[in-house]
Amino acid sequence: MDERVREHAEVLVDWSARVEAGDNVVLRVGPDAHDLAVAVAEALGEREANLLATYSSGEVERAYLTAHGGEFDPDPGHERALLEETDVYLSLGGGRNTSATADVPGETERAYRRARTEIREARFDTRWVSTVHPTRSLAQQANMAYEEYQEFAYDAILRDWASLADEMAKLKDLLDEGDEVRLVSSGTDLTMRIEGRTAVNSAASVAYDSHNLPSGEVFTAPYATEGEVTFDVPMTLRGEAVRNVRLEFADGEVVDYGAGQGADVIGEILETDEGARRLGELGIGMNRGIDRYTDNILFDEKMGETVHLAVGRAYDACLPEGETGNESAVHVDLIADVSEDSRLEIDGDVVQRNGRFRWEEGFDG
Amino acid sequence: MDERVREHAEVLVDWSARVEAGDNVVLRVGPDAHDLAVAVAEALGEREANLLATYSSGEVERAYLTAHGGEFDPDPGHERALLEETDVYLSLGGGRNTSATADVPGETERAYRRARTEIREARFDTRWVSTVHPTRSLAQQANMAYEEYQEFAYDAILRDWASLADEMAKLKDLLDEGDEVRLVSSGTDLTMRIEGRTAVNSAASVAYDSHNLPSGEVFTAPYATEGEVTFDVPMTLRGEAVRNVRLEFADGEVVDYGAGQGADVIGEILETDEGARRLGELGIGMNRGIDRYTDNILFDEKMGETVHLAVGRAYDACLPEGETGNESAVHVDLIADVSEDSRLEIDGDVVQRNGRFRWEEGFDG
Repeated sequence: MDERVREHAEVLVDWSARVEAGDNVVLRVGPDAHDLAVAVAEALGEREANLLATYSSGEVERAYLTAHGGEFDPDPGHERALLEETDVYLSLGGGRNTSATADVPGETERAYRRARTEIREARFDTRWVSTVHPTRSLAQQANMAYEEYQEFAYDAILRDWASLADEMAKLKDLLDEGDEVRLVSSGTDLTMRIEGRTAVNSAASVAYDSHNLPSGEVFTAPYATEGEVTFDVPMTLRGEAVRNVRLEFADGEVVDYGAGQGADVIGEILETDEGARRLGELGIGMNRGIDRYTDNILFDEKMGETVHLAVGRAYDACLPEGETGNESAVHVDLIADVSEDSRLEIDGDVVQRNGRFRWEEGFDG
Repeated sequence: MDERVREHAEVLVDWSARVEAGDNVVLRVGPDAHDLAVAVAEALGEREANLLATYSSGEVERAYLTAHGGEFDPDPGHERALLEETDVYLSLGGGRNTSATADVPGETERAYRRARTEIREARFDTRWVSTVHPTRSLAQQANMAYEEYQEFAYDAILRDWASLADEMAKLKDLLDEGDEVRLVSSGTDLTMRIEGRTAVNSAASVAYDSHNLPSGEVFTAPYATEGEVTFDVPMTLRGEAVRNVRLEFADGEVVDYGAGQGADVIGEILETDEGARRLGELGIGMNRGIDRYTDNILFDEKMGETVHLAVGRAYDACLPEGETGNESAVHVDLIADVSEDSRLEIDGDVVQRNGRFRWEEGFDG
């Protein structure tokens, strides 16, 4: 076995999910994530956890959904019972075709997701972690050769997470103490209030309220946004290429928007509901193992020297106890490269310039 | 999709498992049974059942078991909770290597099976059905080309099950009314008591207490066996080739044994416990879709014109209410070809001669 697969499994089981003896573990396996599943099973055996593997195939889901009449059972009791007794839920993504469910009618998919609200919440109540096994289909999506993609993915995943968590804690502290963030870059001059909000040090571990591997970002829930912002990282949203999105905010709401490509998709998203026109997240990518965009949000939004903003739903972890932040049926991330001609200020102090933080070598305050 | 895969899925879901709308279904998928899983998911969607797919890989199991210290949790609560809320459990066998767990220490495997007694019983409390998707590794085990094996497997699986069930009911009635069975063939003259026992019409459907697809046998639980029997169908037991096994019975117990090959394995099995020296099953294969031995007990024991006997555990379904039949940790089937120079008598009446039943054309009473 490729030693990197074994290391990936160990990071996932120990650092990310903190698996202990006797834990009831569900291992969700994509059809091409088999090798990683074998390595994770070995790690779970060593730690004497209980293992149940589930099979997550886009083709199986497509067959089920397209044949179904559309009135989905909101309480599939066996799946709920399973999750209620589950301590750790490890999702190993990796299919053979990232478009496997492309022809499922949107209405069917939405009905299915709506019906599965309780199942999803039961999953979120476990120590869940989502990762991907680098597959040929993900390499294709990233426009890379297979071996090239493996190197890319493992560079992102096999970090010194404890040390990155320490570095990210510095930014989290600054955000927690600050009242206002200003982002200035080419086509961007945006201010956001963050007073009273708590940043999440997303260090790829349930111990940090962080559920993705790789991770490597610090995020919070901004409000009262003013100004304009341009997102220059290319991406695909709802099957459409989107380039150079520009949003203009007044009083916390999007009042104008445009895009070099895909403006119709952006318009559609902003029309979803009221919350879709306000920000739900400000995230600062700090994973320097990710050195290029691959049109996969799990990686792109964590890339070092990028900043992302999401329109839509805010995460509870960032909000004061009992307060509901921005609510919406969507949460759509858009990403800006801040490696050049950029600065990030907190209460007027520059904390990052041209991608370098103030505690880093090469920072030019 | 190969139309036979779709037919297989429909037989499994409708005839075998009697799936209805709202049923909570677990679909256990082997790594190479993906295509059948897609077809079954489609059938389950059409019938509006709830689907949860699990992943059953010998390689994942091997990694887990060999890494584990060996003290397995007898109550993995999440898996038990899942099965307790499961109505239908469909197992789709199909790996890439039938020897995937060959190097797991026997002691580890036995400890794991012992620990999983309750899990197994919870599964047996569902409407469970086991089938296999014809894979390249099964073709290899059967010493056949892949396409040849597909034809073989679908001939066995895609039967007119209702009509076969009717035919098998005739034999079941004769066995239920009879007191004694005598089997005479080359190297065989054996009598068994069956008075008070109930035969199972194993028609590949939970409606008939039958949990294998393919099936096609009638079986009962004999006792007070006397005489000798030779099993001429070649097979592999515990990794060893076994040929021409001969057992001699007195007073219901094996008093002597021999084999053209593999006598040591037979001796080992007979030494397991007291029950391992008595018969637990007399089965009569009636599936004429199976026309050759493939060293796979799921198929071989159902083959038309064969009779099999198992040493070890008897099935409760054959016993009078409240009676425990022969008990043992093992249940090992051995098979005899009865297509030539053979006859099966019930209370002195010949019901099958040279593979033909008395109600069939060509029967020579």
